[in-house]
Amino acid sequence: MKKTEEYRALVNEALVPMLESLGHIPEKLLSAMRYSLSAGGKRLRPVLLLAACDMAGGTLSAAMPFACAMEMIHTYSLIHDDLPAMDNDDLRRGKPTNHKVYGEGMAVLAGDGLLNGAVELMARSAIHIGDLRGIRALETIMRHAGVGGMIAGQAMDLCAEGAKPDEKMVSCIHCHKTADLIQAAIEAGLILAGADEHTVKTGSRYGYHLGLAFQITDDLLDVEGDSKLMGKNTGMDTDKMTWVAVKGKEGAREDARKEVEAAVSALNDLVYEHSFFTDLAENILHRVS
Amino acid sequence: MKKTEEYRALVNEALVPMLESLGHIPEKLLSAMRYSLSAGGKRLRPVLLLAACDMAGGTLSAAMPFACAMEMIHTYSLIHDDLPAMDNDDLRRGKPTNHKVYGEGMAVLAGDGLLNGAVELMARSAIHIGDLRGIRALETIMRHAGVGGMIAGQAMDLCAEGAKPDEKMVSCIHCHKTADLIQAAIEAGLILAGADEHTVKTGSRYGYHLGLAFQITDDLLDVEGDSKLMGKNTGMDTDKMTWVAVKGKEGAREDARKEVEAAVSALNDLVYEHSFFTDLAENILHRVS
Repeated sequence: MKKTEEYRALVNEALVPMLESLGHIPEKLLSAMRYSLSAGGKRLRPVLLLAACDMAGGTLSAAMPFACAMEMIHTYSLIHDDLPAMDNDDLRRGKPTNHKVYGEGMAVLAGDGLLNGAVELMARSAIHIGDLRGIRALETIMRHAGVGGMIAGQAMDLCAEGAKPDEKMVSCIHCHKTADLIQAAIEAGLILAGADEHTVKTGSRYGYHLGLAFQITDDLLDVEGDSKLMGKNTGMDTDKMTWVAVKGKEGAREDARKEVEAAVSALNDLVYEHSFFTDLAENILHRVS
Repeated sequence: MKKTEEYRALVNEALVPMLESLGHIPEKLLSAMRYSLSAGGKRLRPVLLLAACDMAGGTLSAAMPFACAMEMIHTYSLIHDDLPAMDNDDLRRGKPTNHKVYGEGMAVLAGDGLLNGAVELMARSAIHIGDLRGIRALETIMRHAGVGGMIAGQAMDLCAEGAKPDEKMVSCIHCHKTADLIQAAIEAGLILAGADEHTVKTGSRYGYHLGLAFQITDDLLDVEGDSKLMGKNTGMDTDKMTWVAVKGKEGAREDARKEVEAAVSALNDLVYEHSFFTDLAENILHRVS
């Protein structure tokens, strides 16, 4: 298996060519989509998809359209989430948000285009694969990204605005808004490699706890982090449904540790060498951005 | 084959149960999606998909998730198109637009949810079908709906706002914004029925001309139609890229007739009995809503 930075480099190389392979795209629309897609970021979801596929003996080149699709879905959700009618954020990954540069109308369309384009990449690839692995991976990703998954989390977040933060509600929002897509990445990578159902379920359990740990540390970074390193305005989420608002800083740190432990312990059920995933989970506790 | 009203009734029966089959959806999000999906409309795209599948000997029940997906994609595009940052419309199908009822943030999410949900329905169904027809139909629909298709048309429309209407530009916007999804419906219906490539191409050519005829008559109705029958404010598109703005009313009427003729003449290449599609095209010229 490769290192995180190596998977990330492969994703960064593939993303824009994949986007441009979607046909003749009007210039400003392409520019808006490319802007947010190229703005950097950890590429956590595509890295997890590629690594899971790699671990289970799959082919990286066949998994790449799905990895890029995951990043396109994540990016579209950020563009729409940053809109004035949603979180109203001006800064993302150290750059002005999409609607600040291209206008709100184009930002809506750029988001729509990235979601639609993600599906196009996966569908094309699924036809090429020829058996059911491709369409199963596509279905898994879209289910986790959808109205019973990520979009459900965003809707709950939007409806909860102004309400008193409540543990059950925050936990539910985190599960859907963050953990769902991280689970999807690992499940899809394993499905593409042809892994059995038990392995996919184990990977999903790891992804669930990893996703929660990731979101809790995100909430901590929002109150403690360096806005320069984070590339976005921090201290913005004080009135929002965050883990820190519910449990305090110490409680949140403790819970992040617990989630990382649960993630690592889930890995024991795997027949594959999985130190990559152990390390990745443990590093979450040392995040600075 | 059935009558248009019969296909439409089947779609109207299936739409909400299909939506609700997508899992546990937060109440307000489900309500917002259902509101626009249940607001009526001609159901032209799903009717065309079902009829094309039926004509070529396919099974209606297997085509139904794809038919509902087409209507969900069309509906999401209307919700996002009506947003203040886009067309800023208050009325659609005789009811307040989605963002007027649920707020802009929820309208963005309802649109995202309908697009994502459409793919979920098709993907599930494609796994169930088991061979490549399902994923090929999904790929066709998403390509026509995407950044080289419908979304491209919306982006061009947005960028052209305030510019002098120009024949080439209007024609390009119409092709993408309207004809693309109508072509997709017919192609997908035929693919699901297992029709050969020649038939799919012929159906696509019919859909192309039908789509243009439909959009030109839409532009005419906007200046001549009864806003009560239309269920939306008319006379709104005078400064926009419409066929009437480029060719005048008489020129537009003449061009609509030509497109209908071209659509009907494309049908001669089919080996199937196709009077349903001949009648449907000819009826476009008598639209009142």
